[in-house]
Parts: sequence; structure tokens; C-alpha cells
Amino acid sequence: MANFMMPRALRELADYLAQLPGIGRRTADRLALTLLDWDDTRLARFSEALASVKERVHICTHCGNLGDDDPCAICTDPERDATRICVVESARQVAVIERSRRFFGVYHVLGGRLAPLDGVDAEDLNIAALMRRLATESVQEVILATSPDVEGEATATYLAQEIRERFDCTLTRIALGVPVGADLSFADAATMALAMESRRPMEESGRSVN
Amino acid sequence: MANFMMPRALRELADYLAQLPGIGRRTADRLALTLLDWDDTRLARFSEALASVKERVHICTHCGNLGDDDPCAICTDPERDATRICVVESARQVAVIERSRRFFGVYHVLGGRLAPLDGVDAEDLNIAALMRRLATESVQEVILATSPDVEGEATATYLAQEIRERFDCTLTRIALGVPVGADLSFADAATMALAMESRRPMEESGRSVN
Repeated sequence: MANFMMPRALRELADYLAQLPGIGRRTADRLALTLLDWDDTRLARFSEALASVKERVHICTHCGNLGDDDPCAICTDPERDATRICVVESARQVAVIERSRRFFGVYHVLGGRLAPLDGVDAEDLNIAALMRRLATESVQEVILATSPDVEGEATATYLAQEIRERFDCTLTRIALGVPVGADLSFADAATMALAMESRRPMEESGRSVN
Repeated sequence: MANFMMPRALRELADYLAQLPGIGRRTADRLALTLLDWDDTRLARFSEALASVKERVHICTHCGNLGDDDPCAICTDPERDATRICVVESARQVAVIERSRRFFGVYHVLGGRLAPLDGVDAEDLNIAALMRRLATESVQEVILATSPDVEGEATATYLAQEIRERFDCTLTRIALGVPVGADLSFADAATMALAMESRRPMEESGRSVN
């Protein structure tokens, strides 16, 4: 007996929506039905935005951040303080820090964090480029703004050691105002602002002083 | 000063995602960044699924349901009982009823419900087609399965009057009561009142008779 669940085209659309994080099967079905009600123009533009996003977004070869151009707008902005580099795991975290409006330096995006068990080692991250920047630019402070969880801390500790061995800049770590164990991507602007304001010198042991 | 929030292309993509119900600004940003990590093929197929969904999904001219073809697979299925028509507001509700695996008749989708304050009158719904079906097909039972809220009840009441005046079929309404698996402590008064009013004799076996 024919059983109506969803027409094939809707099912296929829902299948893609369900692959997005936080969108379950039921929600995906509901969203697909909603999209069916969108007018043709809006649907075509959404489809085009999806199809073109990867070729329109560039990774900055200088800092690893995402941008409309390469180098990105932050790296080429003369008003930003290029002597302070904030090191983050991902572009999403750049957006979180920018929203806090407490940092006016530049960024370096690692593209992940150390996770030896998952096969992510130092060579897999954008670390060599950071070292080149420290060697060739006059950097006064490196702010280690990786997430305050196990892998983020390990990454910060590793970077602190590497940088301290070879360079003479100040090393700081964002304050643990953000809850331990949380993914930095979801920090709200106020918490992020506090964490940036109360950043501390990086200790020899690798732990940040609190 | 250049402020990184999101590259234009990501922002545009997130703007469309944020227009979907239940997806806020933050979630949309997160989803856009996730989509940027999808491989080209998957992204292209998702885009294509979006672009083509409206032309691939058909509204059944017979019952108003969505389908791959017109008439739909349920209307053309000889194994389904065409003498019982279940009237629902939307295709989404057809899916809900199909999942229950308790109805093997056919459907009629109204495409909404009466909402005079929002300018939705009987002529705006797929009601004339329902009356034509009742006039030309041998229908024994019409099950009114609109939602148990004010507008859904008004729609069911209106349809019952119209059908009763002109046709001689059985009219039924889906049972209202406490949801299966629910904690009775949280039942609202209106639902509890209905559940109490329409209580059934307890079977010897312990199950209630339905």
C-alpha cells in the first residue's frame, strides 16, 4: 500500500537539512515543507548562495581567517594593532571575539587544535605560519584564545612552550571567565568581553595565572 | 576599523538560513560555517535539491496532498479504502497520520483552516473539491482531523454542517484526550476535561475500549 511520508524531492531536501548539526529528522521535514512555500526567487537565491559560498569565501594566507579577500580585511587594516596577535582555533571564534569589542589587534587562526588521539598534530595546524609571523613581524603580545577545554588548553600550553623558546613576546591567555569545558564558539559577547579584559600572563608551567 | 563578523557570502547564506522557522541568528551563522566545510559535491547537491524542489513536488489535484505525481500515490493506490476520507489541514498532518499506521483510507488536504480574522474564508480552502468528491464518489465516512485548537475546531464544525446538509455519509472527529506517554500531572485543564468526558469502559484485559 502506498504510504505517504514525503515526496521524493522533499525527502532529498530534508535529508540534506538533517545533516546539519542540531537539526533532527522531524525538524528537517518541517523545514523542507517550509522551503516549499518560499517564492521561486528567494529559493533560487538561497540555492545560489549555497552553491557559491565556497568559491566566494577566501582563507587569508596571512592569518588563516575567512574573508572576502586574501589577505583579509583585518590583516590589511592599518588601524588594527598588528603587534598583538590573538591565536584562535577557528574563524567562528574570531567572530565571537569581534562581537565582544575588546580586542583591536590581529588574529591567527589555527584551523583546529591539538588532538593526538584524533590524529591532529602540530603539523596539521596553521602553526608554522604563526612562527614565521613572530620571526618577521614586531609582535609584542600573543594572546592564546583557544577553548578552555582539555584540547584547547593543551594547544595553548604547546604554543606557549614553542613561542617562549624562540621569541621574546608577552604571552597571555584569555581569562577563565568562560565556563571550563565549553566550546568557545558559543560564548556570549559579555562573557567573552570579560574574558578578554582579564587576560593574564602565561605561566612557565603552561597554566594561566588566575 | 575593519570588523570581522562574517565574509559577505557566508553572511548571505546565514541570512537565508535565519529565515527558516526556529533558526536564530547565531544558529544560522553556525550552520553557514558548517556548510562551508561540506565537500563540493554535497554542497552542489543540496543546492540543486533546493532549486528543484518546487518543480519536482506536485500538489495532487484530486486530494490536495503533496506527491511525486498528480494524482498522488495514495489516490491511485487500489489497496487504500477510497470510501473513507480523512480531512486534514496540511500535508504535514498527512505524514503524522501515516506514521500512526491506523488509517488506510484516503485524504483530503484543505491547505489551511478557517481564520476569518486573518482573511482565510471557506473559499480560500480546498473545500469545493471535497464537496465534488462527496457528490461523485461513494464515500461512507469523512473523518475530520483538523487540529484541536480554536480555528481547527471551527473548521471541523463548519465542514460538518456543510457535509451534513448535502450528503449522507458518517462524520467522525479524531478523539481528543491526554497524549499517550504523557505525565498526567502536566495535562492542561481543557484536555483533561475532554479526556474525562469521553472516558471509555475499562476492558477486562485492562486496556480501554476504543
